[in-house]
Amino acid sequence: MLKKNVVTIGGGTGSFMLLSGLKKYPINLSAIVSMADDGGSTGVLRDELGVLPPGDVRQCLVALSQSSETLRNLMNYRFKNGGLKGHSFGNLFLSALEKINKNFEKGVKEASKILNIKGEVIPVTGKDTNLYVLLKNGKLLKGENKINHNFEIEKIGIKKIFLNPRAKANAKALDKIRRADLIVIGPGNHYCSILPNFLVSGVSEAIKKSKARVVYNCNLVNKNGHTENFDLDDYVKSIEKYIGVSRIDFVTFNSKNPNPKLIKKYEMKKDSLIKLNEEKNKKRSFEIIKEDILKDKEIIYAKADRIANIRSFIRHDSEKLAKVIMKILNKKV
Amino acid sequence: MLKKNVVTIGGGTGSFMLLSGLKKYPINLSAIVSMADDGGSTGVLRDELGVLPPGDVRQCLVALSQSSETLRNLMNYRFKNGGLKGHSFGNLFLSALEKINKNFEKGVKEASKILNIKGEVIPVTGKDTNLYVLLKNGKLLKGENKINHNFEIEKIGIKKIFLNPRAKANAKALDKIRRADLIVIGPGNHYCSILPNFLVSGVSEAIKKSKARVVYNCNLVNKNGHTENFDLDDYVKSIEKYIGVSRIDFVTFNSKNPNPKLIKKYEMKKDSLIKLNEEKNKKRSFEIIKEDILKDKEIIYAKADRIANIRSFIRHDSEKLAKVIMKILNKKV
Repeated sequence: MLKKNVVTIGGGTGSFMLLSGLKKYPINLSAIVSMADDGGSTGVLRDELGVLPPGDVRQCLVALSQSSETLRNLMNYRFKNGGLKGHSFGNLFLSALEKINKNFEKGVKEASKILNIKGEVIPVTGKDTNLYVLLKNGKLLKGENKINHNFEIEKIGIKKIFLNPRAKANAKALDKIRRADLIVIGPGNHYCSILPNFLVSGVSEAIKKSKARVVYNCNLVNKNGHTENFDLDDYVKSIEKYIGVSRIDFVTFNSKNPNPKLIKKYEMKKDSLIKLNEEKNKKRSFEIIKEDILKDKEIIYAKADRIANIRSFIRHDSEKLAKVIMKILNKKV
Repeated sequence: MLKKNVVTIGGGTGSFMLLSGLKKYPINLSAIVSMADDGGSTGVLRDELGVLPPGDVRQCLVALSQSSETLRNLMNYRFKNGGLKGHSFGNLFLSALEKINKNFEKGVKEASKILNIKGEVIPVTGKDTNLYVLLKNGKLLKGENKINHNFEIEKIGIKKIFLNPRAKANAKALDKIRRADLIVIGPGNHYCSILPNFLVSGVSEAIKKSKARVVYNCNLVNKNGHTENFDLDDYVKSIEKYIGVSRIDFVTFNSKNPNPKLIKKYEMKKDSLIKLNEEKNKKRSFEIIKEDILKDKEIIYAKADRIANIRSFIRHDSEKLAKVIMKILNKKV
């Protein structure tokens, strides 16, 4: 039987989780990855070496790698001292391959071979571009990192989100979208990892034209200062605004309540669970798949890595989510 | 037929050249590598991360790697800007693996798997130690890098060369030496890459006890300020002083004259061709194998990399040298 084509669109930890689950199924998997990141190790490499952002691509490559655990651990290893402090080894790996091949995409291809990945990881664009948010008060936020750490975005309101310079989509990404049986969007940081994909010219058009079913994996938790008051319908509306039409067919939504202690921890940071307001929208153009897709065990990283420690409490379970996605893929019309 | 055991002792570019040739033959190959390096990228990593010196080990791993050319190029890639400037990617690779495994030797083993190497690369010691040269005027030079760049060593004279703290040999290195059919010493930087191996306690004793034939690959060029006036016999004497007995059975010596233009270039730097004074020592305890083992084509690196540019003019040919070594290995007594 011919394998079906599944295309994911996202970036960062969300894509890592999603792909880790999907890679176990007999499908043709293509991961389209946001190229807007400019924080942390990735930001330093962009500045100092003039490379394209490796961080999100790295996470997808590691998720799809079928090589040894050591090699995967190595790719995620972060140096802790000196001039290398904060750099993820995998980022250096991708940047060196970009330099040797004089081309980011070729570098990703070589990395894919070395890491023996299942499927394909495709940077959404090969253009060196930056994410901007223009707020309603006229303030312009430049760069994913600045945007991510600004907590007044929701209060002030967004006038426009855009990439500068304008970026054309990677031809291969468009081809994969056109020939997809299923397109899976998210989960991920809404403004910083998900939307930037749709700002790349060609992506929304290709999704419109594709005959694929489109699934959106709704996040579990709202982001303080960004999407604090969003419910499920708001996320869908926001994405479809950038696609240009009602194109999402299914939305996965977690039905299991997390541990109340964890909810409290999140609420102290003003990050609340995303709600589904059943009454709000009775004529939805998409079907909501409510399932337990919550990770049972808490992932607790080394204490030194405080960010991971916080952001890892309420998480999707990659295997549960992949099962739901596969059901949608194989669902009879 | 049982494969014969060949053990090389050296470090750096010399070992890289030797191993690149030897790896093509059906032998059990073990490369014992000096751990005295503390210059350049290696020095920064030792200082900042507290790791053991990766540079010489990296060169041996790349020489023995049977993986793709890309992966080998990647290991030798040097970053050119920012905080990463000067670091060889392969050094970062080894340092990250040391950190993850909390042990340098284990890291080297993992690296060997990833790079799919033929044979085995064995750091001569797992001790974090430094090379010292005490000059006859009482001046103490600390560290391989300082020693390498001091050009008054020969003029003033050496009182003592030693490692501090004292370092015990890696048990596996000793085992390989004991069971070797052939031990191949050099070529390489005499004080900085070759001798430091014999300063590690246990190595000389193991060579004395081993039934292996011992070959010394004499360098092609004297090093200005270090061994400017050495001839072949002086090199042998200097090494045997550290082994403690007359143990070298064969010395390979290049018989082909390099291009006179190249000789001139070297002489401008006061690096002269090493001579064989036939009359000096008529009762040698070793046999001299005079052969054309000179690299015909000049290796010219990128102009930016001036050191490589200079040091690559008069070189051993790895295939010619390996052929000579194999003849010695298979010679009937």
